[in-house]
Amino acid sequence: MDILSIIEKKATGQELTKDEINFFIQGVCDGSLPDYQISSLLMAIRLKGMSKAETFALTEAMLNSGDKLDLSSIKGVKCDKHSTGGVGDKTSLVLCPMVASLGIKVAKMSGRGLGFTGGTLDKLESIPGMRTELSDKEFLDAVNNVGMAIVSQSKNLDPADKKLYALRDVTGTVDSMPLIASSIMSKKLAAGCDCILLDVKYGSGAFMETKEKAETLAKLMVEIGTHFGKNTQAEISSMNQPLGKAIGNILEVEEAIATLHGNGPKDFTNLCLSSGATMLLQSGIFHNRAEAIHALEKTLEDERAYKVFRAFVHNQGGDITYIDDSKKFPVARYSVPVRSVKEGYISEIDTRQLGLTSVRLGAGREKLGDAIDPAAGIVLSKKLGEKVSKGDVLLTLYSERPGMQSLVSQMLNLFEFSDSPIVVPSTVEERIRLDDVTKSFVIEKEA
Amino acid sequence: MDILSIIEKKATGQELTKDEINFFIQGVCDGSLPDYQISSLLMAIRLKGMSKAETFALTEAMLNSGDKLDLSSIKGVKCDKHSTGGVGDKTSLVLCPMVASLGIKVAKMSGRGLGFTGGTLDKLESIPGMRTELSDKEFLDAVNNVGMAIVSQSKNLDPADKKLYALRDVTGTVDSMPLIASSIMSKKLAAGCDCILLDVKYGSGAFMETKEKAETLAKLMVEIGTHFGKNTQAEISSMNQPLGKAIGNILEVEEAIATLHGNGPKDFTNLCLSSGATMLLQSGIFHNRAEAIHALEKTLEDERAYKVFRAFVHNQGGDITYIDDSKKFPVARYSVPVRSVKEGYISEIDTRQLGLTSVRLGAGREKLGDAIDPAAGIVLSKKLGEKVSKGDVLLTLYSERPGMQSLVSQMLNLFEFSDSPIVVPSTVEERIRLDDVTKSFVIEKEA
Repeated sequence: MDILSIIEKKATGQELTKDEINFFIQGVCDGSLPDYQISSLLMAIRLKGMSKAETFALTEAMLNSGDKLDLSSIKGVKCDKHSTGGVGDKTSLVLCPMVASLGIKVAKMSGRGLGFTGGTLDKLESIPGMRTELSDKEFLDAVNNVGMAIVSQSKNLDPADKKLYALRDVTGTVDSMPLIASSIMSKKLAAGCDCILLDVKYGSGAFMETKEKAETLAKLMVEIGTHFGKNTQAEISSMNQPLGKAIGNILEVEEAIATLHGNGPKDFTNLCLSSGATMLLQSGIFHNRAEAIHALEKTLEDERAYKVFRAFVHNQGGDITYIDDSKKFPVARYSVPVRSVKEGYISEIDTRQLGLTSVRLGAGREKLGDAIDPAAGIVLSKKLGEKVSKGDVLLTLYSERPGMQSLVSQMLNLFEFSDSPIVVPSTVEERIRLDDVTKSFVIEKEA
Repeated sequence: MDILSIIEKKATGQELTKDEINFFIQGVCDGSLPDYQISSLLMAIRLKGMSKAETFALTEAMLNSGDKLDLSSIKGVKCDKHSTGGVGDKTSLVLCPMVASLGIKVAKMSGRGLGFTGGTLDKLESIPGMRTELSDKEFLDAVNNVGMAIVSQSKNLDPADKKLYALRDVTGTVDSMPLIASSIMSKKLAAGCDCILLDVKYGSGAFMETKEKAETLAKLMVEIGTHFGKNTQAEISSMNQPLGKAIGNILEVEEAIATLHGNGPKDFTNLCLSSGATMLLQSGIFHNRAEAIHALEKTLEDERAYKVFRAFVHNQGGDITYIDDSKKFPVARYSVPVRSVKEGYISEIDTRQLGLTSVRLGAGREKLGDAIDPAAGIVLSKKLGEKVSKGDVLLTLYSERPGMQSLVSQMLNLFEFSDSPIVVPSTVEERIRLDDVTKSFVIEKEA
């Protein structure tokens, strides 16, 4: 077997065998394939696609490329949840404690922010003392004792993906359904949970710009997860506006805490209730969506979810006095309110540009290794569909650096207005799973 | 401008601007683009193609990437001839002296053999003393005084092509019309001749396996050459059998000398007459094909072409006692005749396998830098259409290494026979040029 014949097969649109895909991933991992051959094959895959069988084989080769987590010592149903990323997405900070407080074991690995989206680890690390690198034993103990843990991906999990992802990022080969799906699913499968919920976001603040692409990706990932014996479901959610109101690490932690106290933004709270209900149904703890949602609402009312979050932070070394009193968090040195010069109902928000602006303010990183200002970011005062009068504050910019005044007119351009009221659909628009018996997709639209 | 946007444009099938193509070639040459980004773009080009405008721009960027030869000090019409390569192709050794003896100035750069095809430089260097690296002054003087010179490509001619070609070879991106055409034509254009004749070969012993692909490539190269103001024509010739009877360096030089004495194989002599006539018409020295062919025949009869070849070899340091008496050339230590076990008219010869076998015998190289045995190779006794009886010698294998007996049955499998006579078309099947006035292709079938 040689890589040139494999490249030629794919370039001429032929299906690769499992052996050929294993040979490729083996060569990626052991360094025997030079980057220029890997990237040429990646481009051929991007442009010629992969069959389902190829995608399954690629996922399997990748998940077998490194360590696999053994979660068998954790009692109960282990659930994982993955978001394809978006602006203001602090879901894990609220959803995980909610479902953990109802008995789901959440053993979750998260990532860092890159480009226009933030990352859960960066958000957690804005809490003084918080550690996201745990030993395997600490991780398993945390999930057993507290009900949840969120950690960074362990060093030798899915090394094939680490290498391929870094290369795809610099060779124009990110935009490929089989490559995206196998990258996400190989990590989720190696992480060893029983149930996986995939939150596939679409819109101007997500990687998938159209709902159609999000659905295609969601279906492919559900098929992969199911193929490998995991209870896998997906939800399609809109990223046509930031999730909640806060964008930026400390700002989002504060919003998460408020949400756990029952005072969160409506769209964000609803997303957590919807995703949480799906996870509870997947895990078999509940059998009825309405009951699951009701139970989740109760975890906010009686602060059970908040208590799990507090225990989780404490367990991973975080200073809980910040959780108990979020006024302790530092505030950015500079803040600039942006006031509307138009009036009407907000009909559109350029969410990607808001994400990119928050990065420029210091909340994210343009390239790996960049430093982050934890207090920097953006807080929206108005969201889609809200009525705005001239002079109303639309959002406030926060940064440790001066000079934000020059951004105001740019920010104003990110909003579109309508004269008449706008109907804003719920954030989660539909859920996708494979029927156990018919093996066909079941798509459930959100009411 | 950045390479990722350029890759993305091409991957989504958009046309690159001249500036973007210049940026790419600049980055290839100055080393600022890593190989993995170059190869990802090359694969996108292979799979998405290039418009004519892009191909022209790519050719121009490449030809401007290094030195360009200034042939203005050579008096007369400077002609270049390029063959896309084939098995037994010793055309330059005979064609160039023929047309030079009729007044064309032949300033030619050639290459080395690679894969299943031989290279003119290797053939020339089998003549003791022969130098193919000349200084620019030596080269110009040679063409002015002798009428012809054949040298290796100067070091800094088209560095972009050197880099891209090496990378294409190992990334599965050779098979692309715009990349092949721009690679050939950028070198030809940088070499500075007034007229270019392209011999585009097709068949089992050529890189283009079908006549259709050869025509597509020929047309594209004619358009490029014409676009850059050169009188450019192409001929499509068959490589469904080796050209002439000899394959291997000394063996081919001997056959070339015999041909210059008027004793060459018919197919090879006819190709030289046909190509030579086209060059004489292109250069304006003749205006009628029949007269040109007649004049070329005379150069063989009266040994004028032979004398030019002799002077050319002498001028580049070659020992002409070998030219005057080819029996002086060493003979390979081992030779094995292969006798037919069937009878009939030869209807097919697997020419690529003959070429690969000659490489294995020592006549060529599998990778750059491999050593060559000048006396190794194959001599055919029978060609397409010839009647063969059982026991007739089909070909003889020559090598410095023993063990060729084991190849005999393999060799027999390379021939197909027919019970009834076969019509073998002339090697050159058609000529292609652009009409000066209508700018449309004129395709002239060989009678």
